[in-house]
Amino acid sequence: MTTKTHVERVYNFSAGPAVLPLPVLEQVQQELLALPGCGASILEISHRSKQFVAILEDAEQRLRQLLSIPSHYHVLFLQGGSRLQFSMVPMNLLRGRNLPARYILTGSWGRKAYEEAVREGTALVAWDGGSTGYDRVPAWQQVSIPPETAYVHITSNETIQGVQFPDHPPAEWPVVVCDASSDFLSRPIPVDRYGLIYACAQKNAGPAGVTIVLIRDDLVQKSPDDLAGYLSYRNHAQEKSLFNTPATFAIYIVGLVAKWLQEEIGGLEKMHQINREKAALLYRVLDESNGFYRGHAEPSCRSLMNVTFRLPDETLEKQFLTQAEREGLTSLKGHRSVGGIRASIYNAMPREGVVALAEFMSDFASRHAS
Amino acid sequence: MTTKTHVERVYNFSAGPAVLPLPVLEQVQQELLALPGCGASILEISHRSKQFVAILEDAEQRLRQLLSIPSHYHVLFLQGGSRLQFSMVPMNLLRGRNLPARYILTGSWGRKAYEEAVREGTALVAWDGGSTGYDRVPAWQQVSIPPETAYVHITSNETIQGVQFPDHPPAEWPVVVCDASSDFLSRPIPVDRYGLIYACAQKNAGPAGVTIVLIRDDLVQKSPDDLAGYLSYRNHAQEKSLFNTPATFAIYIVGLVAKWLQEEIGGLEKMHQINREKAALLYRVLDESNGFYRGHAEPSCRSLMNVTFRLPDETLEKQFLTQAEREGLTSLKGHRSVGGIRASIYNAMPREGVVALAEFMSDFASRHAS
Repeated sequence: MTTKTHVERVYNFSAGPAVLPLPVLEQVQQELLALPGCGASILEISHRSKQFVAILEDAEQRLRQLLSIPSHYHVLFLQGGSRLQFSMVPMNLLRGRNLPARYILTGSWGRKAYEEAVREGTALVAWDGGSTGYDRVPAWQQVSIPPETAYVHITSNETIQGVQFPDHPPAEWPVVVCDASSDFLSRPIPVDRYGLIYACAQKNAGPAGVTIVLIRDDLVQKSPDDLAGYLSYRNHAQEKSLFNTPATFAIYIVGLVAKWLQEEIGGLEKMHQINREKAALLYRVLDESNGFYRGHAEPSCRSLMNVTFRLPDETLEKQFLTQAEREGLTSLKGHRSVGGIRASIYNAMPREGVVALAEFMSDFASRHAS
Repeated sequence: MTTKTHVERVYNFSAGPAVLPLPVLEQVQQELLALPGCGASILEISHRSKQFVAILEDAEQRLRQLLSIPSHYHVLFLQGGSRLQFSMVPMNLLRGRNLPARYILTGSWGRKAYEEAVREGTALVAWDGGSTGYDRVPAWQQVSIPPETAYVHITSNETIQGVQFPDHPPAEWPVVVCDASSDFLSRPIPVDRYGLIYACAQKNAGPAGVTIVLIRDDLVQKSPDDLAGYLSYRNHAQEKSLFNTPATFAIYIVGLVAKWLQEEIGGLEKMHQINREKAALLYRVLDESNGFYRGHAEPSCRSLMNVTFRLPDETLEKQFLTQAEREGLTSLKGHRSVGGIRASIYNAMPREGVVALAEFMSDFASRHAS
């Protein structure tokens, strides 16, 4: 039993690691000294203990249910973040092949993924939004993808620029690899449109330290035999994420978050609807501010996860951040590479937090608009 | 405030993830919903927030104090476990060089490290304890290490076999790389005898999910430029472990464990003394059992961390495990590759737990010795 009365929590708009569902944190807290029936903390038990193996299987099954993952896809829990996936994807799917990978660059993370791929094989840019400051994603038919392609790489949501693909690539494309780090579990995904989906957990799925990979079985078989042990998807798939000691605690939380999505939210369609409504509250303030707030993304490509915008000048942006912080609205500063304001409103950000921010924004604009 | 009265904890002899200090778990539990003065959980805050950067720096400073780490060594917090270090070490220090690495194999983990090294360059076996079942470590003068050596790799403690180097390699050897995963922080280390020391946290230093690397500055400069971003020590050193999002929660716990070692235990000399006393309690039972318990390691190479032994037959071993479990002495099963019994008695295993096990062992032997 824990008492919660004295804990003051802010509305935390961090882009990641990010807010987690309060009921999940409460369960973690309650079980921290000893898992029920176990006599030891989740932090202390072997990854091969029956208790942890049950937790691992439960987390996997809940992800399979939430995303309707077909049985010929593996669900892997890895370490090293999306950053290591930027390299593992081409190491496993590009090295030693005669076909190029093709990267669609819609923001900073897609660009970094591409920069790692060129170290491992022939990677080409299929589309690059750099000329308009990564303020949009392409329509699929705008991008030419020849059949001679090892894989196409996309970033479903760019956290820094705040642009998101509103839908999914055409079924007729070759293997598509998706970095879904920042919108994974925020909406349904037709998994079979993709060959591989990866997502670091620290946006919607859990804490930092675990990265979830969904990979189609035929692609697992492509891992080169001479790859370093940890870097081979095949090793992790064969050992069901127990090739070595995984990030046990982070996986436990992913399972609790998935349970929260199933039992408290009611699944990903519901979550998507809630996320659409939350984002609309903020974009409406932007659109009705007579240009005081200037959203970064083209309206058709606006992210439901990261709402990015500028104020008339940097002095006002600083004031905005300071005053927001004072109201308990924290971590709203834009990424250091682009500046401005970024409100990350992942699954676990309650609607009340978004309402509070929208009201603060309207109020701030009315006080400072000239 | 949390009430602890209803939590029943066992004595958990898991080889890793392993028992953590109870005061550390209690602090984690107390702060779990919101770090003091922060309004958000450690699980929810950005790795670039001032709160987390302070936690990261505190963890590093405490490790530097505990181990007297010279200032020309970097302290890195990485992901992927020792398993990824098995590959990163040769990728960074062997690839493209004309010198071989030399591996001293004293157990299963050293062998696995060697198997990864041969994928990356010329790795030679300098000594192999396989012919006697990895029951000992060599005296240093038994091993011939020519100056033409990229590095020498040792495993300071082998968790599966329960053998440990009682001291440290000669100062005149070339660069020594040490996998100290299972005895890191259990005793002082003359860090300057080594070029690189790595340790996954889940034995003595924290939970699974973070791996600590101490690396001398001149070695950081050897990382090849074409290495995948995450796999380059230089990138992590330049960015002070913030090359990408690190395992924030695991690092926070490493800091708390280091604080516990400093403030509750009184440093690593004291910890070493306590560990020697704990191990002696169990080895005495082995030695006085008239051969009922047969220790795996040669007495001069006995691990202070993992006490491994066999009973007269497997039926008795099963009974031993079942009855121990009933007494709240858990996770005593030997590694699946070697069988038998393994009692892991890391820093956080209280002396009372070891006393309870020693008494159980004496009692079991007196009941079953023929």
